[in-house]
Amino acid sequence: MIERNENLAKLSAGYLFPEINRRKKKVLEANPGARIISLGIGNTTQPLTPHVVHALERAVLGMGTPDGYSGYGDEQGMTSLREKVASVIYDSAIKPDEVFISDGAKCDIGRLQVLFGSGVRVAVQDPSYPVYVDGSVIMGASGDFDPAARQYAGIVYMPCTPDNGFFPELDGLETDLIYFCSPNNPTGAVATKEQLYKLVDHARRNRQIIIFDAAYSVFVSDPALPRSIFEIDGAREVAIEINSFSKSAGFTGLRLGWSVVPQELKYADGTSVNRDWNRINTTLFNGASNIVQMGGAAVLDPEGQKEVRELVDYYMGNARIIKATLEKKGIASWGGVNSPYIWAAFPGRQSWDIFEEILNKAFVVTTPGAGFGPAGEGFLRFSAFGHRADIEEACRRLNEVL
Amino acid sequence: MIERNENLAKLSAGYLFPEINRRKKKVLEANPGARIISLGIGNTTQPLTPHVVHALERAVLGMGTPDGYSGYGDEQGMTSLREKVASVIYDSAIKPDEVFISDGAKCDIGRLQVLFGSGVRVAVQDPSYPVYVDGSVIMGASGDFDPAARQYAGIVYMPCTPDNGFFPELDGLETDLIYFCSPNNPTGAVATKEQLYKLVDHARRNRQIIIFDAAYSVFVSDPALPRSIFEIDGAREVAIEINSFSKSAGFTGLRLGWSVVPQELKYADGTSVNRDWNRINTTLFNGASNIVQMGGAAVLDPEGQKEVRELVDYYMGNARIIKATLEKKGIASWGGVNSPYIWAAFPGRQSWDIFEEILNKAFVVTTPGAGFGPAGEGFLRFSAFGHRADIEEACRRLNEVL
Repeated sequence: MIERNENLAKLSAGYLFPEINRRKKKVLEANPGARIISLGIGNTTQPLTPHVVHALERAVLGMGTPDGYSGYGDEQGMTSLREKVASVIYDSAIKPDEVFISDGAKCDIGRLQVLFGSGVRVAVQDPSYPVYVDGSVIMGASGDFDPAARQYAGIVYMPCTPDNGFFPELDGLETDLIYFCSPNNPTGAVATKEQLYKLVDHARRNRQIIIFDAAYSVFVSDPALPRSIFEIDGAREVAIEINSFSKSAGFTGLRLGWSVVPQELKYADGTSVNRDWNRINTTLFNGASNIVQMGGAAVLDPEGQKEVRELVDYYMGNARIIKATLEKKGIASWGGVNSPYIWAAFPGRQSWDIFEEILNKAFVVTTPGAGFGPAGEGFLRFSAFGHRADIEEACRRLNEVL
Repeated sequence: MIERNENLAKLSAGYLFPEINRRKKKVLEANPGARIISLGIGNTTQPLTPHVVHALERAVLGMGTPDGYSGYGDEQGMTSLREKVASVIYDSAIKPDEVFISDGAKCDIGRLQVLFGSGVRVAVQDPSYPVYVDGSVIMGASGDFDPAARQYAGIVYMPCTPDNGFFPELDGLETDLIYFCSPNNPTGAVATKEQLYKLVDHARRNRQIIIFDAAYSVFVSDPALPRSIFEIDGAREVAIEINSFSKSAGFTGLRLGWSVVPQELKYADGTSVNRDWNRINTTLFNGASNIVQMGGAAVLDPEGQKEVRELVDYYMGNARIIKATLEKKGIASWGGVNSPYIWAAFPGRQSWDIFEEILNKAFVVTTPGAGFGPAGEGFLRFSAFGHRADIEEACRRLNEVL
């Protein structure tokens, strides 16, 4: 009889967001009239913008005609979209064949873990997006979960806290892979050029690969802060970048992202990582939806980029309201300036307890910091994605219960 | 320095279809004026149908409005679509929480391999869709490639040839997983109820899991032939089914499929496979595109099902033309009746040689049988997907060169 995959058996609990959903549903069942507002998951709420809707509509109508119809496309994405990402996002510092279009950053992280296999040693920022750890565990790149430490054996957790300015200590870090997210989910911290240079330099000296999650890069408005790891000299030899249309253009439900794997990135035996990534994409993936790719191309038009800036401004307006509320209550917070996430400190308290308190008293969903790793204990993440009226109402309620 | 994943190093050559594309491009470069017709990859060519286009358009326009917009959905798919698949496709013999909506069968196969991990022993029909083998190799479920046998060590290849009616010998088969595809890609063979009962019975007695690929089920017109493994008593304890909107509704480029994992399916330790599959989907996947899911729901409407039948009739008309051409030339072929694939025998010849000959002389792309496994040597697969005029022109040319 077939044995359960021991790596799945290792997973300590449900994936964070379904767990939050479960608790939310429970509160709703107990309070049938309650209007719950979510500042939890980073889920976009504003409609797709006119230029993008128009392109999607054209794509759909075209697919209903003999000339406009297309079936399977290249698994790596439409050539025109790869070219557009390379030129618009990277100012042609990246070549189109280094760009792989995907159905989103989360799925790309899953496939990257298949690429590197079970033998790799992994480091993550602590706190971090749960998929880096959970995915590594599923692929067999960890030992067992230690409930006391709230860590998996074999995975290196790099604490990122207010004390170190949310930038990890790199001395002695010898893993094969380093997951690094900036603007950071969940802390909202944005690494400076100097910090990323340190990271790249460390990876070069220790021959490591950085998986740089830039899914929130569009929220960086300070021109001194980097939006891509490839703004750092030498990064092409050590970094993979993943990014997405989810948060910039509201494509969370449409599913579209991309990864960049530079030609210079090599394994110890000199073979190309780009080539193996191509093989993974052609074998285990079948391309992002063609209709959605045509919408993504419109996002990268000048008109689409203008619309993205308006969406970003809207969500960042929300972030200012949330930050002001926390400040008024004397709660220290970080992020929310070049990032849609606000990381708030509740010293001495368990984050699931604060989560439950706010959910039950204010009917507001947040995300408990401990869900992102042990160093997230005592923090809550507030997401700035939401309708303005909901954010204002949520902040009124928070103002009462906090 | 990071080592290359040894499983990727094991992969013997490129994935079949990119390799065919490469050869096609080469011929095009040498013959700039040539109009190449593809009877190769099973790629749909007929436009999306009106009822589906209308639903997709409504979905797109809705996403541009505050009320119609939606962000992240459930990773397993919209509840309404899961319910509709359960009722329309399975006549409610399957429960909605046993249906997982995906971005297509190929991607589901990749995730299923992550589910079962590197420790499983895998059996495939020979010939078979390359992703079963290549994906298993990538996950570490095989040994090295043996160039003489054209097989990977550790994977059981079950020959399916005209001699055994394309149904494998099961006696002594003790692997954990059995990949089984009916209607079969590439041979076009459709397993009878009696054959599938044998398969299910064998899996029950040996406590194996069948991964039943039903991606071509919609082409089964003979009411005596099963369209789903779940038509067989006892299958709920041993089978996973994967299926897709690609070939039925022309969603090859849109990306939409589903898997069915019954609640009765258990590991040796009694834990639920459905629960682990849910964990894989929520952790490493983020749902199929919401717009495309709304199109899929329209496919399952009575109007959509009528359109599907018209598409199927069209492609099956193509299949009859191809089969007649082969018959006229005295070439034995199978399939093409309840399946869009025709499997033609060229005894004593190498399939890549015949492929090259037809490509260079007739400018017609086929698929060499050897690309599907050693038992495919000496065969070519002809796909019935194409515009009628192209099929007729291709058959005229084949008539000349064969």
